Amino acid sequence: MLHAIVLTLTVAAQRTVLDEFTQLLAIPNLASDAPNIQRNAAAIRAMFDKRGLTTRFLTMEGAPPIVVADYKVPGAAKTIAFYAHYDGQPVDATQWTSPPWTPVMRDAAGHDVDWRNASAIDPEWRLYARSAGDDKAPIVAMAAALDQLKAAGNKPSQNLRFVFEGEEEAGSPHLAAYLAKYPDVLRPDAWVLCDGPVHQSRRMQLFFGARGVVDLELTVYGPIKALHDGHYGNWVPNPIVRLTHLIDSMRDESGRILIKDFYDNVKPPTASELAALKNVPPVEDDLKREFAIGTTERKSLNDALLFPALNVRGIAAGHVGAQASNSIPTEARASIDFRLVPAQTPESVKALVEQHLASQGWTIVRDTPDAATRAAHANVVRVEWGPGYPSARTPLDAPLSRTAAALMRAAGHDPVLLPTLGGSIPMYLFQQPGNTPVIGLPIANHDDNQHAANENLRLQNLWDGIDVYVALFRGL
Amino acid sequence: MLHAIVLTLTVAAQRTVLDEFTQLLAIPNLASDAPNIQRNAAAIRAMFDKRGLTTRFLTMEGAPPIVVADYKVPGAAKTIAFYAHYDGQPVDATQWTSPPWTPVMRDAAGHDVDWRNASAIDPEWRLYARSAGDDKAPIVAMAAALDQLKAAGNKPSQNLRFVFEGEEEAGSPHLAAYLAKYPDVLRPDAWVLCDGPVHQSRRMQLFFGARGVVDLELTVYGPIKALHDGHYGNWVPNPIVRLTHLIDSMRDESGRILIKDFYDNVKPPTASELAALKNVPPVEDDLKREFAIGTTERKSLNDALLFPALNVRGIAAGHVGAQASNSIPTEARASIDFRLVPAQTPESVKALVEQHLASQGWTIVRDTPDAATRAAHANVVRVEWGPGYPSARTPLDAPLSRTAAALMRAAGHDPVLLPTLGGSIPMYLFQQPGNTPVIGLPIANHDDNQHAANENLRLQNLWDGIDVYVALFRGL
Repeated sequence: MLHAIVLTLTVAAQRTVLDEFTQLLAIPNLASDAPNIQRNAAAIRAMFDKRGLTTRFLTMEGAPPIVVADYKVPGAAKTIAFYAHYDGQPVDATQWTSPPWTPVMRDAAGHDVDWRNASAIDPEWRLYARSAGDDKAPIVAMAAALDQLKAAGNKPSQNLRFVFEGEEEAGSPHLAAYLAKYPDVLRPDAWVLCDGPVHQSRRMQLFFGARGVVDLELTVYGPIKALHDGHYGNWVPNPIVRLTHLIDSMRDESGRILIKDFYDNVKPPTASELAALKNVPPVEDDLKREFAIGTTERKSLNDALLFPALNVRGIAAGHVGAQASNSIPTEARASIDFRLVPAQTPESVKALVEQHLASQGWTIVRDTPDAATRAAHANVVRVEWGPGYPSARTPLDAPLSRTAAALMRAAGHDPVLLPTLGGSIPMYLFQQPGNTPVIGLPIANHDDNQHAANENLRLQNLWDGIDVYVALFRGL
Repeated sequence: MLHAIVLTLTVAAQRTVLDEFTQLLAIPNLASDAPNIQRNAAAIRAMFDKRGLTTRFLTMEGAPPIVVADYKVPGAAKTIAFYAHYDGQPVDATQWTSPPWTPVMRDAAGHDVDWRNASAIDPEWRLYARSAGDDKAPIVAMAAALDQLKAAGNKPSQNLRFVFEGEEEAGSPHLAAYLAKYPDVLRPDAWVLCDGPVHQSRRMQLFFGARGVVDLELTVYGPIKALHDGHYGNWVPNPIVRLTHLIDSMRDESGRILIKDFYDNVKPPTASELAALKNVPPVEDDLKREFAIGTTERKSLNDALLFPALNVRGIAAGHVGAQASNSIPTEARASIDFRLVPAQTPESVKALVEQHLASQGWTIVRDTPDAATRAAHANVVRVEWGPGYPSARTPLDAPLSRTAAALMRAAGHDPVLLPTLGGSIPMYLFQQPGNTPVIGLPIANHDDNQHAANENLRLQNLWDGIDVYVALFRGL
């Protein structure tokens, strides 16, 4: 059946990988920087051309190209697509130790090292640059895995398709349109999404879903001009107090959402999901120390991620600190995001939230209310829904899920199996409408400072990634 | 007994008053602007010198002088002091129709009028300038009242002392020290405080007290760094939600304070205070329209002011609107001010609030807590108490109170009797330690834009003020 391939890259081979990696990392990659984004796309296309794959750009007006590289296997029935993205988060260069697009290798103590001339390459060294972890490492690892596969005289068992997006960090604004425009290319038989970090325990992981999300902005109103609270307090409604009571009517301190019927269409976890959670290494105590928190809302982190969440992202009204004045403010705002699980949708959540607001005596408006509207109702709330999308899940016992886990185990990288990410990625776009199996396979270290300054990739994570890709290319 | 003095100033006399008023208003009067503050003090001293009073400056290093003018009556047993202040609020000149220290007369339609050459002076005209209402009008009206008294061949019944402060709008930082340094001057037998506006119904008013105040800043803590709420929400405590629950544990939406024993040392209103409230003209419906509010907390505005209040002045955490990001913020802050009534003190309130916090499971710290402190306790709150002082009340049936009201009634200015202002002024400083009777007699129109741009005084209020001062000087 499955055979473990034990790869040990020579120092020369490692240097070749790092050479390709540092060249790619040296190209600035903000989605909004069109000339450099094109340079990234061209460089990646050249990497896969060089390896004999059939490459092309998918294009759309005003969007970075999607780079596609195909490895056709004569007689293969299925096509497995591997996804990564080549754009990166914006940078605040003043916060970086070295310039974000000048890759620098450092040892575990943080000292620069000359990897090109070193006799051995320590797997605990890290390469620092924007997108080292998120998300150029998988691109370089996939290319290197193709070389390894060839060197071992192996071939993929199915057709492979590599798909690299150029605006994921900008919110993938054209991804749905791309999927609609190129169904023949972007509707493979299965997807492996290579983005994000491995488990906090440093073990590799597979994830099988992601929570959906929908944003909500609530504004409640006090007097139409700020009033002296000595003269009018206790009589003129304080909008901050209205808002705190409104928030507390929606959610308790243990994370439970109090909105009527909110859990009615939440699918309970499957037996295989619950079983997988039991095997997730415990990290709660470490995280409590790292975050300096003396308590938690739900007891188990992984358990918490299986449920929908109501997070208050921000709240603002009047002034605090030195700017505070003794007045009743005119309005109070809260910004909320909901995390959704199967079978919730943004639409189902919107309906329940608005029913709740009405049941609590709130009059809903969509724009800033005028004085007449404010005077006509006891409680007016402006409700602004932001963008959103549903969750996605692939069953842990689907053939793709089971095979991928078995291949990783055989390659010596027994993965943590996460039924879902807590965060939201638009996995449903890849999954729908055909219910295509989609799994997530991240390779970056969990402490890679993704989205922040001094982003980095720990080299062992790169070698592990190459290992695992070889196993999947060969065995899936 | 008491005889009404019906004053009708001639147009010439009105012009003389307005001439003196505009000259005083033309001198910039920020407490921090020492040279101009000295010019104001000198001008006021000259006004009272000219009328034959004995004047002096009380001085203190770094503080504007207090101008004192004495009118000694041979054989009089008591000294009645009249207080006003000559400094004004800071200005944002860009918001003013005309420069703040260039007095301009306008008619009710807002058109400039040439009052110096008009054949008649409409009492609905308004004089626009910083401090026209707050608080130079009483100073000019007192000086004019002395002229009227003299012209009618009358003398005061008691010694009069005029006391004019120069840093009230800066928070009276030296008032307590002045009172301690000059007890012979600043401990008269009674005080009449002439500051603030008349009743919203346009009737004159007397007030007999003011609420005390104490400020409180609360900061509660989440994770020590902002976290992705998709990955950690429902497990890592959200500090905003902790804070909203804390606020809601302290106060309900009808203004009732839920802190244990909070009302225990609140003195119930006296029979005469309750009787006075029944005679306060109703303004609630007008105010609800003006403020565009569809409901109120307590039903009656005046009733609300007899109780202590907990006002949330501001709240801040994370971001709202376009800046909102899907994260769990590190802390959440609320700024609160309490309004106090007899016999509460800042100290009694502090003790009750801190007992409440402890009973709700909060660990109180005084500074920003370190990671170890945050990790060691389920709920940590930083408590910062701001400045505060107690309330003051003079009984409505005290001789000063009854006589002042009767004199105003006889002069045709039946006053609204307010047991207390809702706002806080340091009336207790004038009252303590000897329990000196202190009453408040404002003359400015309620819609004078005090503290804001286009501050103004309606001329009828000036004429009414002169009337009433004549009556009080003669009869008190």
